[in-house]
Amino acid sequence: MSTIKFCSNCGHAVTRRIPEGDQLPRAVCDHCGTITYENPRVVVGCVPEWDGRILLARRAIEPRRGYWTAPAGFLEIGESMHAAAARETAEEALAEVEVGTLLSVVNVLHAAQVHVMFRARMLHERHGAGTESLETALFREGEIPWGDIAFASIHFALERYLADRRDGLEHIHFHDILRAAH
Amino acid sequence: MSTIKFCSNCGHAVTRRIPEGDQLPRAVCDHCGTITYENPRVVVGCVPEWDGRILLARRAIEPRRGYWTAPAGFLEIGESMHAAAARETAEEALAEVEVGTLLSVVNVLHAAQVHVMFRARMLHERHGAGTESLETALFREGEIPWGDIAFASIHFALERYLADRRDGLEHIHFHDILRAAH
Repeated sequence: MSTIKFCSNCGHAVTRRIPEGDQLPRAVCDHCGTITYENPRVVVGCVPEWDGRILLARRAIEPRRGYWTAPAGFLEIGESMHAAAARETAEEALAEVEVGTLLSVVNVLHAAQVHVMFRARMLHERHGAGTESLETALFREGEIPWGDIAFASIHFALERYLADRRDGLEHIHFHDILRAAH
Repeated sequence: MSTIKFCSNCGHAVTRRIPEGDQLPRAVCDHCGTITYENPRVVVGCVPEWDGRILLARRAIEPRRGYWTAPAGFLEIGESMHAAAARETAEEALAEVEVGTLLSVVNVLHAAQVHVMFRARMLHERHGAGTESLETALFREGEIPWGDIAFASIHFALERYLADRRDGLEHIHFHDILRAAH
């Protein structure tokens, strides 16, 4: 699944082979010796709550344009997971949150991603569509658009969030996804 | 801190600028249009326990050669966090573990890494030095070589592990490191 064809250090074509002392094939540059490692990326988000309702945003961009999601996005270099969850909520749903306990860690194996979701408390009721969203809305438990949730990892996080809330618990839930259901 | 000088898709030199619709500078190729995103990497490991003692390995490789660590290493594409923790323990300390609850999540901001550590139970007492280790040993709480622990994130995880164990708890501990203490 490597997309690396040329060395990012010197621009020469790479070859794909197992370097000495390693166990896996890597993109190796025989010109300058650079080995480029590809590793899973971390997506961080949260389930923001206000007065018992859950804040979701409808995606304005691909993948899954038009479908609903909880705010989430790629962890950037130099930011903590908590900071990333709050930033994504501000960007996608124009809402301010206090990030709470860890809710779910989903290994999205086919996409080379780890999706990490937190619980979160909205600091006020204000929310709205950022540039990556078509609209935002607060949903009561019975109103969640389960058939129109953008990603399996978000579906999983929302289910576990609500089940824990009914039981007065705040567990962490691990899950592996091998292939997206949609 | 970007090390990307050439496009991994076409080999032309990249420029560093903020793409349209983005907030951060990226390595952009003006020849083929590829944007290369750099994100934190995930390091996964565990604190293996046998009969009340903690398994540590002394590093045979840089960084921090000669110092002690709990087994940990980069999460690979296609593997879950739990699988990575068990694999690293097998590779570095030749020990078999059942990976347990999540212990710590440390944002190592200066290194663009997230260090995720789990509790773990050794399935038998056997252990030994893998190719990346000089030696391995089981330590009682009072024997841990605190002054010779390789990384601040591992020091943090071991401290919290033992404190929780004394209290009969299994909490998750978050921590940010801006600059390595050593």
